[in-house]
Amino acid sequence: MAHAIRFLAVDAILAAGEGHQGVPLGMAEIATVLYARHLRFDPADPTWPDRDRVVISNGHGSTLLYALLHLSGYHHITLDALKSFRELGSPCAGHPEYEPAAGIETTTGPLGQGIANALGMAIAEAHLGARFRADLIDHRTWAFVGDGCLQEGVGQEVIQLAGHLKLGKLTFFWDNNAITDDGSTELSISENVADRFRVAGWHVVEIDGHDLDAVDAAIHAAKADPRPSLIACKTVIARGIPRLEGQRGGHSGKLFPEDRAQMAARFGWTAPSFDVPQDIGEAWRATAAAGGTERDSWQRRLEAADPDVQDEFHRTEAGLLAEGWRGAIHAYKARAAAERVAEFAIAASGDIVAALYDVLPDMVTGCADLEAPTNHKRQLSAFTVGDRAGRYIHCGVREHAMGSLANGMAAHGGVIPLAVTYLPFSDYERPALRMAALMGLPVKFVFSHDSIGIGKNGPTHQPVEIIASLRAMPNMMVIRPCDAVEAAEAWEIALEHRTGPVSLVFARQSLPVLRSDGGAENRSARGAYVLHEAEGGPRRITLLATGSEVQIAVEARAALQAEGLPTAVVSMPCWSLFEAQDRAYRDAVLGVGTVRVAVEAAVKFGWERWIGEDGGFVGMTGFGASGPADALYRHFGITAEAVVEAARTRL
Amino acid sequence: MAHAIRFLAVDAILAAGEGHQGVPLGMAEIATVLYARHLRFDPADPTWPDRDRVVISNGHGSTLLYALLHLSGYHHITLDALKSFRELGSPCAGHPEYEPAAGIETTTGPLGQGIANALGMAIAEAHLGARFRADLIDHRTWAFVGDGCLQEGVGQEVIQLAGHLKLGKLTFFWDNNAITDDGSTELSISENVADRFRVAGWHVVEIDGHDLDAVDAAIHAAKADPRPSLIACKTVIARGIPRLEGQRGGHSGKLFPEDRAQMAARFGWTAPSFDVPQDIGEAWRATAAAGGTERDSWQRRLEAADPDVQDEFHRTEAGLLAEGWRGAIHAYKARAAAERVAEFAIAASGDIVAALYDVLPDMVTGCADLEAPTNHKRQLSAFTVGDRAGRYIHCGVREHAMGSLANGMAAHGGVIPLAVTYLPFSDYERPALRMAALMGLPVKFVFSHDSIGIGKNGPTHQPVEIIASLRAMPNMMVIRPCDAVEAAEAWEIALEHRTGPVSLVFARQSLPVLRSDGGAENRSARGAYVLHEAEGGPRRITLLATGSEVQIAVEARAALQAEGLPTAVVSMPCWSLFEAQDRAYRDAVLGVGTVRVAVEAAVKFGWERWIGEDGGFVGMTGFGASGPADALYRHFGITAEAVVEAARTRL
Repeated sequence: MAHAIRFLAVDAILAAGEGHQGVPLGMAEIATVLYARHLRFDPADPTWPDRDRVVISNGHGSTLLYALLHLSGYHHITLDALKSFRELGSPCAGHPEYEPAAGIETTTGPLGQGIANALGMAIAEAHLGARFRADLIDHRTWAFVGDGCLQEGVGQEVIQLAGHLKLGKLTFFWDNNAITDDGSTELSISENVADRFRVAGWHVVEIDGHDLDAVDAAIHAAKADPRPSLIACKTVIARGIPRLEGQRGGHSGKLFPEDRAQMAARFGWTAPSFDVPQDIGEAWRATAAAGGTERDSWQRRLEAADPDVQDEFHRTEAGLLAEGWRGAIHAYKARAAAERVAEFAIAASGDIVAALYDVLPDMVTGCADLEAPTNHKRQLSAFTVGDRAGRYIHCGVREHAMGSLANGMAAHGGVIPLAVTYLPFSDYERPALRMAALMGLPVKFVFSHDSIGIGKNGPTHQPVEIIASLRAMPNMMVIRPCDAVEAAEAWEIALEHRTGPVSLVFARQSLPVLRSDGGAENRSARGAYVLHEAEGGPRRITLLATGSEVQIAVEARAALQAEGLPTAVVSMPCWSLFEAQDRAYRDAVLGVGTVRVAVEAAVKFGWERWIGEDGGFVGMTGFGASGPADALYRHFGITAEAVVEAARTRL
Repeated sequence: MAHAIRFLAVDAILAAGEGHQGVPLGMAEIATVLYARHLRFDPADPTWPDRDRVVISNGHGSTLLYALLHLSGYHHITLDALKSFRELGSPCAGHPEYEPAAGIETTTGPLGQGIANALGMAIAEAHLGARFRADLIDHRTWAFVGDGCLQEGVGQEVIQLAGHLKLGKLTFFWDNNAITDDGSTELSISENVADRFRVAGWHVVEIDGHDLDAVDAAIHAAKADPRPSLIACKTVIARGIPRLEGQRGGHSGKLFPEDRAQMAARFGWTAPSFDVPQDIGEAWRATAAAGGTERDSWQRRLEAADPDVQDEFHRTEAGLLAEGWRGAIHAYKARAAAERVAEFAIAASGDIVAALYDVLPDMVTGCADLEAPTNHKRQLSAFTVGDRAGRYIHCGVREHAMGSLANGMAAHGGVIPLAVTYLPFSDYERPALRMAALMGLPVKFVFSHDSIGIGKNGPTHQPVEIIASLRAMPNMMVIRPCDAVEAAEAWEIALEHRTGPVSLVFARQSLPVLRSDGGAENRSARGAYVLHEAEGGPRRITLLATGSEVQIAVEARAALQAEGLPTAVVSMPCWSLFEAQDRAYRDAVLGVGTVRVAVEAAVKFGWERWIGEDGGFVGMTGFGASGPADALYRHFGITAEAVVEAARTRL
């Protein structure tokens, strides 16, 4: 059965002309034992909520997964799919691409991301098990892991955090083949990796990864231990190909038909390419039988549950929002527009989320070592070893793991993950942001400290280019609200957005409420809108702004209007939503033909899209500085006077 | 003496109205022993090349450093500077900002960066010691480290790599106060941190961080051990302030005059604010005496050295390029332009760097688990425990540490660091890229795999937004050459650029040589230039392109010219250099008034700056896909035909 994996993988790689044989050849026995004797899965219902999750964190070894999915009966991964490995449109892409219906639980390739996703999946499982009872949610998360995943910082964060949270149903299979793409691991690491896991509180079993019984015993031991488990598998990279096994070239060195012939001779494999002997094929398909039975009895348990529980379970799994969520937002918004009390922008977001938490039990917050810039922490109990129902994950000073585990929670389903940190440190989790966008995961990334407005902590803590870098990312919705009313609208948009992540970007400083209309209409939903139309004649000047600088635009408008210059203020909380509007709306809002000046406490990069080549821009041209916020705004010339001047000189 | 640190720090924080007292109050004894008995430094010559390096990796504890620098006699940190802590323009910024002349060796604040810089400094020291003999370079690197630095993934990468490289002159003082900003460290970590270091091969001493003798003994032990040392200092956060010590609020909770009064009563300190009793002040100033003597004898050793060695030492320290570097580039360029052999773009860069290595002994390459996309690895010996003269650092799958240690090497001086990885994984080191740009460090970040052109590995490995995100970063020069000739020009620009980092972005695929002019003129130096002017009449169309897409523009131009449409091709390898040209040059190159179409295998974000609101753009609108490169270019419509069409429809 293990050889069936090997030959399918090699045949696919030979057909593609390139690929990574190291993992499938090295981990074939491990995978076989897992699927044949332990894995809880049902290819007839690939998205069964209580299935085990399998993550190929060493994603270059994608053919291992494809072979497993094909052999065990997942319908998406046909023989033709395997034969088209790495061709455009094939379900068998170069690296696994998130497609739960095909049995692909997450996209992997960038190292370390997979195990961090696995951590998030294990957290989601533990949490949902506490919420819905273990007879409805009680499954395991298994990750195949290479040396690279464990050298990446995010992998080390995962080791620390998983050990701390004692997620006993999380198991890593470490492909300990002593080779990375660079050559021997001795080039770059000296530590005993197993000991490193032990220090972090993991259960560790060290075995020969090609010994089926040893793998089986190790998995039994992992299942019996309350700690997360590392099964350290001594393996031979590219096992079976004499020219490459145990060698650096085993990773992804080009294969030739003779390599397959030699492997076939070694293992006595007589089947032709892409052919699996019937008895072996049957044995593989039989691996799914136990899972099918388990799924049936799970289904009966669900159907026997209280109808309210069933409804809630189905709603949660479908990712639908619970009733009352919009009302909670609208109530906040109406109050904010009526009372118009200036507030820290991030605190306004916190108040909104606090209200949402009461009506959305699916919301779970991960936060990297902050007094959460939401109010959650005070409101929520922590997710701990002793309280899996907790909905606040203290991620430590580990932004990267936080972002990636939020992705894993979203991929798992059943929770709405929030990941909260300061915007300047979003760079630490940028690989996670990218994966969320690429996978289309509905994670809510919440950021505070969005500009020089944070003041005296200085330029390391002041984003200037980061909003642009997020806006440049495909499928990443970025919203930067100007006040508490827009903050409410931002949350309404974010919760309804299901096809990708949202970055909600808030100022740390206090912002006045600029909007007095607190009704049901979500004006931010079109991305940009005329906050104040020009008065006293046809519009001559359009001031564009986001976030904390909208108030500067409003102030500048007053001065320009006082000079008799009809001036509009456009608030642009979300560029991508605005981009999606029809041209007539865009042109009308932007005031094409009028003098356009944008103001944002950030670099100009990207603003030409809205102001044209000759528009004015008032903002940053470099990094910030340490000093009081008001002094910084003056120092960098981000003032109403500067906006007025930029407009005047263009008339 | 330790109390002098405490009171200066508290006085500065009280004056500023905010700050982080946890570190200076908790690490005052450690710092005092280090400076008084061990540190090799001379405030009279702050940039003395053979000084010890001190890094405050827990950079929020900046007042610890400022107090130390003031007390020990660094002229930049006057009492007035301390009194203006956190005010705009003060040398005492919220977080330490790189200023070697003031004794500030690196900018810190984003956690983990400081210790990674320290690792780079220790590498630079070891390497230069091997290159110039230990009587000219033989100093230590000391880092003050908080829990946050050790939870960040980059910190863990540093622990692994420093242990592996056995950098015995690197010492960390861990401020083990069991508190982070979030509260007790028990919220987010369970592992024994000292054991984690031991696993990685560090020498560990565990002490009471307030016991002067224990600190002294630990430092002696660290100096005697061939491994890097962790001095794990059990400390009390905010020690001395009854209301806050040992508490979460000790980190940065607001201070009041009563807090100071209570601390003064506790320690019997009677001096007024910002006043240091004379005997204590004298004792502090005396700490520098030994360093001054050491510097004198070092100076004499240098002056006694062979004149050639002296010259080379001075050249290296000044960061001047050795003779012959430009000739090496020009020779390559002339050959490339004459022979016009298509080559993998990154391999062309490799050939150039290989030639440079022979003439620039200061060049040191760090590479994250690749067959270096330069040819260095085959050419250079590795930097190892046994060979400190090696100039190739196997960084492992640790892009973040690689980038940050390159920053540390640059901050140390004496080496020209290159940091090499794939562009898609530049996100992993983005915090390091940002710090290099913020500090203005001349690091050369070299990237391969710059677009969908890498093909079958799929979207995880295909940058689409990353070039834009780099271009958005202030002070980050980004160069994307179109062929081997531009690659040579890019390296010429990069080596001459000393005020900030350069990102050199290369395709993985083979690119034809488009330039036949291989003379000394560096056409890329203006950022963009007319590669082919329109023919047969005044220019009607301008095609703008970078990198691998310039050949597409050239092909499209041929088609448009064949239709009788005078069309120019503009190559734009470096936007920021082009932005710096005068408007007349920019307008002439861009062909303002002509139809403009840009082509780049990346998102449009930022291109409006050059094509205007109504220009055409042929490129990506989302993430890539797994498939052969040519199929992807067709699939995403990045073709000469599409460029022609985009131009035609705008005529």
